[in-house]
Amino acid sequence: MTTTDSPWIKIISLDPPSLQDNTADADRLISSLKANIQSAEIDVDLDLLKQLPALLRKWQYQVRCIVFKDRHRWLLTDITAAADTTPVAGLAIDLGTTRVVLRLVDLSTGRTLAESAFDNPQDAVGPDILARIHYAEKDGGLDRLNELIVHGLNRAIACLCATLKLDQQNIYALAVAGNTTMTHLFMGLNPRWIIREPYIPAVNKPPVVKAAALGVRVNPRARVLIFPNIGSYFGGDLIAGILYSEIDKKEETAILVDVGTNAEVVLGNRNWLIACAGAAGPALEGGVTRMGMTAGPGVIDKIIIDPDTRKFEIHTIEEKPPRGICGSGVIDLAAQLYLSGMIDIRGKFLPAECGSRLKEIDGLLHLTIVPADQSGTGADLTISQADVDSLIRSKAAMYTILETITTSVGMALKDLKRFYVAGTFGSFINPRSAITIGMLPDLPLESYHSLGNSSLGGATLALTSADCLAQTDRIRDRITYLELNVNPEFMNRFSAAKFLPHTNRSLFPSVEDWSKK
Amino acid sequence: MTTTDSPWIKIISLDPPSLQDNTADADRLISSLKANIQSAEIDVDLDLLKQLPALLRKWQYQVRCIVFKDRHRWLLTDITAAADTTPVAGLAIDLGTTRVVLRLVDLSTGRTLAESAFDNPQDAVGPDILARIHYAEKDGGLDRLNELIVHGLNRAIACLCATLKLDQQNIYALAVAGNTTMTHLFMGLNPRWIIREPYIPAVNKPPVVKAAALGVRVNPRARVLIFPNIGSYFGGDLIAGILYSEIDKKEETAILVDVGTNAEVVLGNRNWLIACAGAAGPALEGGVTRMGMTAGPGVIDKIIIDPDTRKFEIHTIEEKPPRGICGSGVIDLAAQLYLSGMIDIRGKFLPAECGSRLKEIDGLLHLTIVPADQSGTGADLTISQADVDSLIRSKAAMYTILETITTSVGMALKDLKRFYVAGTFGSFINPRSAITIGMLPDLPLESYHSLGNSSLGGATLALTSADCLAQTDRIRDRITYLELNVNPEFMNRFSAAKFLPHTNRSLFPSVEDWSKK
Repeated sequence: MTTTDSPWIKIISLDPPSLQDNTADADRLISSLKANIQSAEIDVDLDLLKQLPALLRKWQYQVRCIVFKDRHRWLLTDITAAADTTPVAGLAIDLGTTRVVLRLVDLSTGRTLAESAFDNPQDAVGPDILARIHYAEKDGGLDRLNELIVHGLNRAIACLCATLKLDQQNIYALAVAGNTTMTHLFMGLNPRWIIREPYIPAVNKPPVVKAAALGVRVNPRARVLIFPNIGSYFGGDLIAGILYSEIDKKEETAILVDVGTNAEVVLGNRNWLIACAGAAGPALEGGVTRMGMTAGPGVIDKIIIDPDTRKFEIHTIEEKPPRGICGSGVIDLAAQLYLSGMIDIRGKFLPAECGSRLKEIDGLLHLTIVPADQSGTGADLTISQADVDSLIRSKAAMYTILETITTSVGMALKDLKRFYVAGTFGSFINPRSAITIGMLPDLPLESYHSLGNSSLGGATLALTSADCLAQTDRIRDRITYLELNVNPEFMNRFSAAKFLPHTNRSLFPSVEDWSKK
Repeated sequence: MTTTDSPWIKIISLDPPSLQDNTADADRLISSLKANIQSAEIDVDLDLLKQLPALLRKWQYQVRCIVFKDRHRWLLTDITAAADTTPVAGLAIDLGTTRVVLRLVDLSTGRTLAESAFDNPQDAVGPDILARIHYAEKDGGLDRLNELIVHGLNRAIACLCATLKLDQQNIYALAVAGNTTMTHLFMGLNPRWIIREPYIPAVNKPPVVKAAALGVRVNPRARVLIFPNIGSYFGGDLIAGILYSEIDKKEETAILVDVGTNAEVVLGNRNWLIACAGAAGPALEGGVTRMGMTAGPGVIDKIIIDPDTRKFEIHTIEEKPPRGICGSGVIDLAAQLYLSGMIDIRGKFLPAECGSRLKEIDGLLHLTIVPADQSGTGADLTISQADVDSLIRSKAAMYTILETITTSVGMALKDLKRFYVAGTFGSFINPRSAITIGMLPDLPLESYHSLGNSSLGGATLALTSADCLAQTDRIRDRITYLELNVNPEFMNRFSAAKFLPHTNRSLFPSVEDWSKK
């Protein structure tokens, strides 16, 4: 097993001290490490310094050094015997508002050792960012939120390590990507000003800190890299996504979209990057629409409606009896309702076309997707006119954001060659449906690429390259942030986009074709 | 009161955040500080970062920043309101084996606020380095030694601050100069290998650490600069002394000597520095010769013997009745005994010349310096033949060290233009007496300069210049260390130097003149 491939692991063979060379233990080791790494500055913590003389002698001055690169300097995190082959592990963390995903990586090979995920325990306090920030303002609220996430992580880490029979002390580096509020709560920083004009985070580029300082139970000297943010509404998860997508390295201009409650968009290439974030509306996120939910067994993720028979062909995750519908399912549904003529260009149910599926409940029209006798809940699964209206606003916001950012650099949406969609949403979305409702632009379907969990992917990359922190900072500093709130065209564009697929149908020639089928 | 003169204090006036500039609080401050300091890297601790947003708003983004310069980066230690005029204090510490001296300095003006000193409480464990290192090897011994010095410092700091009505939190920087063992014990580093061949310290260049990590009760984020050492027997106190003497900056070659149990010598100029250390013998240090003691009231520091009448003219510190004799007094005494013909060139008492002052006790000749009826102790103050023999060995060792180091660079002792003597010994010594016994070379008396507590002086300098740490490292790295143990000429030179003033009398023409008076 070779461990020399990793930037974080260096085998150092020292000449033992002699009367002719009485350099101190620490300086002897650091000097040799400096030559190996070709760095002018390597720091050692006092607590490791205290152990060095005995450890170096125990191992006859032949050691395996575990290092980490902070912005302008290297740090010696630990030493082991040179022959020690215990894995040197790193932990990539996608710190989501709803869900937290961990990936344990062997730092010597880059190989994934294990993964796990858990619901963010801060949900007990409030489901969304706003609720949590308000809670953080109460007495002891911030501490409680911080404890919830740290304890949650510690439980997950303990569990991962137990499964692998790996000592938690062998985790030497963490990379954490999350939105600005989640990373603030994780660091114990007051998020109060994030949601108040002019929306100021405590920090854009968090310092590299020791795991012990954050209460994370791994090697206490393990260094924690927390991805920088652009501002309150453009977090480190997005920066990790850019790192993972590599749009900052390519000649051709590409776009990266991450959709949750907010839509975050980055447009650019190796010469420039521009980003914006805007409310995409609640319709796309589980738990917000009455029947919407996050992807899981029994959740409807695909729907096809026969335009002639109006028969619904429904697919659920794991093909379990349908219990609800997720964001991508809602988009499929709206697209199919439109293509089959059951809703008009304003998204309004057409009673003549919907037939018996349409009923009025409390004065509001509802369309039955799955009748009670076929559903997994024993009740009708329906979508209301209000749900569709909400979706239309969301898709209009999304398209307007995309249009605004491309226009801001003098491009048209049709000029985009690559379109990355990040996150769970990106994994499930059917681009053809999203185009049909005019949420995504009418590009060739092969332009669309799902990135999966790009936040976790970026965090993993950060663990496997010494220059990642520098590259991450560079990405962050290169981004021009476009403030949508102050864009005078935004509302006009938004109004034009509130139709299916758009008031300007020439922007969506494919939808015309698809309608004819 | 202007506070902008100090490298550690920066008044920063920030534009408050706006929708047009939503840079985070920490990054806004750091960016402005970077421009002010012209540094690319300024780090902030997590615990200060947590406080920043509220503090910046409280002070309307007008703040006084307290910074510190680590080797390759700056650190933001704290912020206060811009208008705050509370002193920003630094503490210089001379960490002696026997005595610890503290000097509190106003970092904005460089002015000394207060000084204090206390006996090193580690004396309870053992009086010298050897005893303490052996104690450190016992169970819990190192911790106890560390606690003794840290608690001693904390008591002294509390006392200094109480007197000045200064909050200990206002001490933001410490500079500590001590020998290699004392600094190891202060940092909690195992000194075990310092006294064992090949004599290896744990560290030559200690990292800058936080006061909290060392248990020192000042601002927990105060940074502690610990002077680097050359090796086990050439400590940070000497490096501080070189910094203070500025011999490393001058064109002319000068020599710096610090005498305790060891004699440490540095020779050099702005182009090169060479250093060595050697046992100077016990006769020069208080508490080691039977009657010797450290300087204090009633201690004989000067003696003149009339060569004709052999009458002793004795001066004591504070002119109190004589209680003992200190190192400089012993040198005066030996010089006067020699010039008045009461001892021969081997340092042996000449009974005919000593007369009734000489008596035999337990088979050993003793010379009465002060009879019982005139002494402060009620007993005769005497010096034995063994004491004089010991002094001769010490002075021979001293001279041999000086001769060896100058010869090693192709110089003669007479070529030296400036001769600095450091420490308490340097303050009291009479160069003429030291020349008379052949301890110091026969240079014009005006060549000799007493530096006082150069260790404390160097530590103070380190608190008042941002580049001091770099300069200190540079001094340390430039020094060539001359190993006396392996020098083949050493024993021959030592034998030749064991006469008064030397076997080669032509080296001491002045002594011939002084003898004739």
